[in-house]
Amino acid sequence: MASAALKSRVRRPAYLKKLAKAEDLIHHFPHGSYIGWSGFTGVGYPKQIPTALADHVERNNLQGKLKYNLFVGASAGAETENRWARLNMIERRSPHQVGKEISKGINNGNINFFDKHLSMFPVDLMYGFYTLKKKSNRIDVVVVEATAITEDGGIIPGASVGATPELVQMADKIIIEVNTATPSFEGLHDITMTDLPPRRKPYLIMCPEDRIGTPHIPIDPDRVVAIVESTYPDQTQPNAPADAKSEAIAGNLVEFLQHEVKHGRLPPNLLPIQSGIGNIANAVIGGLASGGANFKNLRVWTEVLQDAFLDLFDSGNLDFATATSMRFSPEGFDRFYGNLQHYAPKLLLRSQQVSNSPEIIRRLGVIGMNTPVEVDMYAHANSTCVMGSRMLNGLGGSADFLRSAKYSIMHTPSSRPSKTDPDGISCIVPMCTHIDQTEHDLDVVVTEQGLADVRGLSPRERAREIIKKTAHPDYQPILQDYFDRAEFECLRKGMGHEPHMLYKTFNMHRYLEEKGTMKIPSWDFKFDS
Amino acid sequence: MASAALKSRVRRPAYLKKLAKAEDLIHHFPHGSYIGWSGFTGVGYPKQIPTALADHVERNNLQGKLKYNLFVGASAGAETENRWARLNMIERRSPHQVGKEISKGINNGNINFFDKHLSMFPVDLMYGFYTLKKKSNRIDVVVVEATAITEDGGIIPGASVGATPELVQMADKIIIEVNTATPSFEGLHDITMTDLPPRRKPYLIMCPEDRIGTPHIPIDPDRVVAIVESTYPDQTQPNAPADAKSEAIAGNLVEFLQHEVKHGRLPPNLLPIQSGIGNIANAVIGGLASGGANFKNLRVWTEVLQDAFLDLFDSGNLDFATATSMRFSPEGFDRFYGNLQHYAPKLLLRSQQVSNSPEIIRRLGVIGMNTPVEVDMYAHANSTCVMGSRMLNGLGGSADFLRSAKYSIMHTPSSRPSKTDPDGISCIVPMCTHIDQTEHDLDVVVTEQGLADVRGLSPRERAREIIKKTAHPDYQPILQDYFDRAEFECLRKGMGHEPHMLYKTFNMHRYLEEKGTMKIPSWDFKFDS
Repeated sequence: MASAALKSRVRRPAYLKKLAKAEDLIHHFPHGSYIGWSGFTGVGYPKQIPTALADHVERNNLQGKLKYNLFVGASAGAETENRWARLNMIERRSPHQVGKEISKGINNGNINFFDKHLSMFPVDLMYGFYTLKKKSNRIDVVVVEATAITEDGGIIPGASVGATPELVQMADKIIIEVNTATPSFEGLHDITMTDLPPRRKPYLIMCPEDRIGTPHIPIDPDRVVAIVESTYPDQTQPNAPADAKSEAIAGNLVEFLQHEVKHGRLPPNLLPIQSGIGNIANAVIGGLASGGANFKNLRVWTEVLQDAFLDLFDSGNLDFATATSMRFSPEGFDRFYGNLQHYAPKLLLRSQQVSNSPEIIRRLGVIGMNTPVEVDMYAHANSTCVMGSRMLNGLGGSADFLRSAKYSIMHTPSSRPSKTDPDGISCIVPMCTHIDQTEHDLDVVVTEQGLADVRGLSPRERAREIIKKTAHPDYQPILQDYFDRAEFECLRKGMGHEPHMLYKTFNMHRYLEEKGTMKIPSWDFKFDS
Repeated sequence: MASAALKSRVRRPAYLKKLAKAEDLIHHFPHGSYIGWSGFTGVGYPKQIPTALADHVERNNLQGKLKYNLFVGASAGAETENRWARLNMIERRSPHQVGKEISKGINNGNINFFDKHLSMFPVDLMYGFYTLKKKSNRIDVVVVEATAITEDGGIIPGASVGATPELVQMADKIIIEVNTATPSFEGLHDITMTDLPPRRKPYLIMCPEDRIGTPHIPIDPDRVVAIVESTYPDQTQPNAPADAKSEAIAGNLVEFLQHEVKHGRLPPNLLPIQSGIGNIANAVIGGLASGGANFKNLRVWTEVLQDAFLDLFDSGNLDFATATSMRFSPEGFDRFYGNLQHYAPKLLLRSQQVSNSPEIIRRLGVIGMNTPVEVDMYAHANSTCVMGSRMLNGLGGSADFLRSAKYSIMHTPSSRPSKTDPDGISCIVPMCTHIDQTEHDLDVVVTEQGLADVRGLSPRERAREIIKKTAHPDYQPILQDYFDRAEFECLRKGMGHEPHMLYKTFNMHRYLEEKGTMKIPSWDFKFDS
């Protein structure tokens, strides 16, 4: 029997006849299925079905025997996909993930993970590129969380849209989890479905507040095999607090933006802002919100909204924000729901294909800001793989934004602690051990030490600027020595455009691995083996 | 006095009053000026002024004393910019170049060169990003070749558009070289000027033949300080002939495209094709033109048209082609001019910002094909810097297309000759020494050995496929051994997402440098120093 709460959310009565319990739907998920979930950065993901499947595997000792190809716009909740990873239920996963167990599974070889630009993943999925080995190019079952259902059977998502529109377009079967613990998000979404070439059309968005779609995800009701009531909200974490380093980074960035306004390269209300996740991003948005920065009538075009944007709204300086997900902390969601009428008219959630669209990012002239694993002296950046090999979370939308933004900014502390040295890891290195953003994509590198503006500079000029302005003082002489020697040797050989000592370039990383710090005494240091 | 030929081209009589000789215009070019030229891939570039300036420097021994910041959409003619490089007249150059002397100047430190996505260069220029050190953000003098002038004073370019629209938008002074040796190209261009955010608009192009602009480049006649008659055509080179390897590559690619059509992922007439420059590109286009391939009603959306496209037109299988430049050989231009009425209705030249626009490339679902320096086993590619340091020509549009194309294809011979070994250089390596295209950007790697389809594969799956299908047989065991050892070590350490032996990863390159071949006997090989 449908609860009153459920009836109030589902405006298409025929769906209520398909009401089921999650544990009775296991048969829709045979081993090897291709599965899609709604969700993005741990909000708006399905909870009942993934949990029921995990319980089923645990109860029947099916670890490693029920494995799935799992596609989610970005990360789903820790209690679902992370648990699936622990139970060895994931054969393949794309395009982004967060969680200790899933990262472990990827790096020990259990999970075939590939990360992909978040703007491209949904359309590549529709091209059939990820289902090449199937007879049909469709996804077997897609599980979507809704906060309401329209008369036509359309889905009103929750706090994220992600890849759900394309996943349901490709689904053979759809299961809807209607979340009655979360308020309805109706009116907060602008949904566009995806046509394929040669029938694709422009995204006619000229500013962040433009609506070009529908408020719900239209679906074929005949493909809905069941609906399930879901009774607990997204399990998010508190935000990482800003620390002194991240505030210094934010200060350097705000100063740069003021400088650009002063020189007429930015209007006084800037251009739409994109900001990543984490404490630096929080500090930057906090810096913009502070009275001293004096930026008014700001707009945001980004991938994920964090709590700091609520502060920016409350400061009165933010006019509008759009993203594909609102990943607030539990306190942030309370604040958001408690003042929904205030925030709702200034917010819009779109699909990740739209929020991360190079077409729109370039047209709007977005100011793109991201945090890397490491940046090199020529302005390449590593966003994904520590020591070239160990996957963290995936590329996400970093390259969508940094390639096409008007300002492409990487912000990072100049150093991070290793186990034995509080500054044992330099985030500025001679050559990144993995490259996700190329030297052709970055305009600015900023740390707590300072800001390197590398626009229009040749690689050798860039290196001098990045070392001087952004490197930690302990690493400045080491990096400068690398550069001077590489430059001398390469110019002499007539190959000095981007000087490297190729066979020593990762020696700082090697020294870290062997001695616990990147503070290599000399570039002539001899390693044992 | 204006020649009859010149008068017939210049429909705005007031311009004829500004007729000058190139050698009388030297005073417009003081040392340190910011200069723009029209031209792209060695066609449509100015000839008189650059030659007069070079003569001036040579005659007065001003080598290294008259140096310029030079911006051209891509490469200009060898007899102009290459000669400037030899005379040490180039202080800074962007975003792409071709020529022995200019490459020498870049790699010996004389020229500050930076390469940039060709789609982004013009708008970054308009943002003022390349003139940060000037008081005004404008370009001092822009020299443009025209094949005709409209009544309004607008410029009808020749065989390329490139970055000319944005260069003239930013020019303080404009000098027009009217080329009377080349037929007028009027009607062959679709020109759009650039607005800046927040006023940018979508490019409303839904198929290659859509026109959204004007047939000429509109300019402010008051900024025209002189016109010069130019009396010799673009100096192009014969095309590199296809060889057995490139034909084998083309064969593998045509088979792949047929396979995609068969599986419904491509329509029978494919989607718009982009093809690079060089003998592989020629062979691929030749392969598509051949009767056996059986592709009809093709369309082309590309950066540069080479002679092979004339064959494709003549085969009757190409309906329409658009690009930013037509770089035909001397014979190709004869053929083109000789049958202009036949080709003209099927051709359109656009600015490089449009031809290389990610917005349009993604919307049209372009099939993008390019040749790299090297590709690695995880599907990153190096398009620019040999041994990580020595600049060849620059990024060009490779990343514009490969990032946003529906099919992102790298084609390369599996090996190249070194001085002492006909297969001394493997084009498939463990890790690229410079990365311009990331693993997130490539779908297909193809050599004469075979084709690796890496869509939807994790890095370790990708490596196995690329080694098995595309590596030269001499290098297959070497690469497989690297991968097996790296995989074993990294999985054991729980960092096996993208396995590397970071401190040995460039040992094939080192062995090449020391021994003349990449055929390293073992990954345990001890180098002397």
